[in-house]
Amino acid sequence: MNDTAAAPPPIASRDACLALDRADPLAALRAEFVLPEGVVYLDGNSLGALPRRTAARLAEVIAREWGEGLIRSWNSAGWIDLANRIGDKIALLIGARPGEVSVGDSTSVNLFKTLGAAVALQRADAPARRVVLSERGNFPTDLYMAESVAASYGLDLRLVDGARIDEALNDEVAVLMLTHVNYRSGRMHRLAATTRAAHAAGALVVWDLAHSAGAVPVDLHGADADFAVGCGYKYLNGGPGAPAFLWAHPRHTSRMDRKQLRQPLSGWLGHAAPFDFAPAYRPASGIARFVCGTPPVLAMAALECGVDLFAAAEPAGGIAALRAKSIALADLFIAQVEARCAGMGLVLVTPRDAASRGSQASFAHADGYRVMQALIERGVIGDFRAGEASAASADGAADPALAADLLRFGFTPLYTRYVDAWDAAAQLHGVLESGAWRDDRFARRAQVT
Amino acid sequence: MNDTAAAPPPIASRDACLALDRADPLAALRAEFVLPEGVVYLDGNSLGALPRRTAARLAEVIAREWGEGLIRSWNSAGWIDLANRIGDKIALLIGARPGEVSVGDSTSVNLFKTLGAAVALQRADAPARRVVLSERGNFPTDLYMAESVAASYGLDLRLVDGARIDEALNDEVAVLMLTHVNYRSGRMHRLAATTRAAHAAGALVVWDLAHSAGAVPVDLHGADADFAVGCGYKYLNGGPGAPAFLWAHPRHTSRMDRKQLRQPLSGWLGHAAPFDFAPAYRPASGIARFVCGTPPVLAMAALECGVDLFAAAEPAGGIAALRAKSIALADLFIAQVEARCAGMGLVLVTPRDAASRGSQASFAHADGYRVMQALIERGVIGDFRAGEASAASADGAADPALAADLLRFGFTPLYTRYVDAWDAAAQLHGVLESGAWRDDRFARRAQVT
Repeated sequence: MNDTAAAPPPIASRDACLALDRADPLAALRAEFVLPEGVVYLDGNSLGALPRRTAARLAEVIAREWGEGLIRSWNSAGWIDLANRIGDKIALLIGARPGEVSVGDSTSVNLFKTLGAAVALQRADAPARRVVLSERGNFPTDLYMAESVAASYGLDLRLVDGARIDEALNDEVAVLMLTHVNYRSGRMHRLAATTRAAHAAGALVVWDLAHSAGAVPVDLHGADADFAVGCGYKYLNGGPGAPAFLWAHPRHTSRMDRKQLRQPLSGWLGHAAPFDFAPAYRPASGIARFVCGTPPVLAMAALECGVDLFAAAEPAGGIAALRAKSIALADLFIAQVEARCAGMGLVLVTPRDAASRGSQASFAHADGYRVMQALIERGVIGDFRAGEASAASADGAADPALAADLLRFGFTPLYTRYVDAWDAAAQLHGVLESGAWRDDRFARRAQVT
Repeated sequence: MNDTAAAPPPIASRDACLALDRADPLAALRAEFVLPEGVVYLDGNSLGALPRRTAARLAEVIAREWGEGLIRSWNSAGWIDLANRIGDKIALLIGARPGEVSVGDSTSVNLFKTLGAAVALQRADAPARRVVLSERGNFPTDLYMAESVAASYGLDLRLVDGARIDEALNDEVAVLMLTHVNYRSGRMHRLAATTRAAHAAGALVVWDLAHSAGAVPVDLHGADADFAVGCGYKYLNGGPGAPAFLWAHPRHTSRMDRKQLRQPLSGWLGHAAPFDFAPAYRPASGIARFVCGTPPVLAMAALECGVDLFAAAEPAGGIAALRAKSIALADLFIAQVEARCAGMGLVLVTPRDAASRGSQASFAHADGYRVMQALIERGVIGDFRAGEASAASADGAADPALAADLLRFGFTPLYTRYVDAWDAAAQLHGVLESGAWRDDRFARRAQVT
């Protein structure tokens, strides 16, 4: 993919940022979120902010639907349709169609379902293919679930550098599993081109959209992808540990031959007729076969509040406008950090080319943990990702994107302003220039994000 | 197990019920729930009622922990410890010890984890054993998950009548999976005796406590059980689709040899060092290896409110007192229904012997669906379970407990009163005597519970 966007004019002052915010058609959406005073929140790629409507909606679900309706609410309040209803809304963000997306379980569990389904299809269609291929720097849960699926089907998990996926696509590969936007570097794979290459090589593809759904335009049908999963609590703002989503191309879910699509977590609500309580499993038609247990209603209701804000962004240009703003925010931040902090030990790890990155900017720094803690104390919340001590690429060369300790900054254009990006860069400079981060209270501890 | 409880004196009037409620040391707990006016709720075995504290607690988690704390709350609000913290509280209800119970995912998903772990252990210890054994009338999701686990390990799933488990325990059986209390009949397996029989036959046992945890005393260590799972949204009152729980005996989780316990849903938060972001999976020590993805914080917070009410019941006698009241409520209901509705087509399916049943009473009725709808319209909420049209036992004889359409009534002694059981029986009699259930508006539709 070429960088087709014209370079924007550099933003030269805080006042210019304030002017951009005043002119921003997306600016009103910030009022749809509850954000703490005095905080610049650049960690929406790890946990999205709280939509203003969520508290009232959850109060209603708890008091009226659960408390008053009790068991009747499975029908009267539409709980039983939540997985499809929210799925249809997410479909609009990822180039899927109504009835193709299911919501529930965690991203990890959904990876297991889709990988299991893809591997089983290939076992029927191409049994000689014995490899699940992925990127060495993929998010660990993707690799761990793939390791388990591969082991249970007697396949091998093969990991290569992200830049070498195309050359690794050979006739041994049954399934390629990739995360669209890398959680550390923010580098974005070319979803359509890589899917084409995988198909040309005879492989199926499972895409993890955890760091792209809601942040960058995704067109699963346009790319002719096979399976996808994604996260509800990052750019979709569904709340901590929100249910994840899952998509399968209808060419797979509509197969009625002996190679009918099965997924391994065959729970009762994915049965063709769950209320027949039959002893033998028979998959539901379409995507519904990917449902497993009883849906987590409270968590689903919160997720829906987050997802609904993308509809609210439609009049202002929707996902295309969000993407343009996300790029502008990250460009501004990168330019300001590099201008202010030259010589202070920061190295940009995220691709400078906006077309090759998602919605974050990551900088390597040898004391990244301490720097981030000091920055958080000043009210700028990004996060820290430790480098992998043993990181080395497949050919033995160290991969700096894996080995480095990173400062990670996510840009969530539904609620992040230009002035936030400006202020964050200024604060980062302040932390580095002052040496404040050297204080003992910023020494490394276990961290969860 | 013998019925060692002395038969209580029959309760002969509504006034006698009111007197029992006034004298009940558990009665005050009803005020800890929000219950709709004019409703007798006897479906807490499907979806438990709303604890009064849940709304305020969720409002706090949403506004303060998520909204203000944002990503920092993983540490500052203890989100990362929720699975263990709630697990320790559930441990007290099931005869487990601190640090042995994990909370998260659905019952179905946890069945997959525990069955997968048990089968993998047996593959190492007793590879000639090729059968997963269960009860034909087990809840479908248990059977469907077992079908999938068995298939992925090349084993067979063998289903027999519940009464024939002992004789089916032979040297082919790797794992026995049973639900402690049957969801239809309410019949309770003898947990300790059946575990002993399974061990004597060389099998491991996975117990599903969905219909027993919080309703009947369970002593997993006393029974020397291997694995257990259970449901958060029935007797634990955790909310619709609440996270489930999971237990494994420490003799399994502490194995450090080549047969170290693995479970198939090896997500990142079950890794020994999740924040090292290492590419290869290494299971955490103890029960923590059963965690998969990021925990659903909102749903976990709601579950904790439900679980905490068992601590509130401790001064009034705790689980033993709850069990005694549950038996008294069901005995009262059964006696009243049988006395009032003789000749009206109801047949008790639940064992009359209290020691052999859980906390429900099920009656077969040929028009069970309509009768339950008419009863619900009168404010008595139980539920309906369709008979399995093709139900037949392993030897070809029809099994009435499987074949019959059932009216199901759950007794949840944290909030159900004696007068509720009395009134429910009277209303059921009224529905049957009046023929109100024959009205077209009660014709059968799809139902979810």
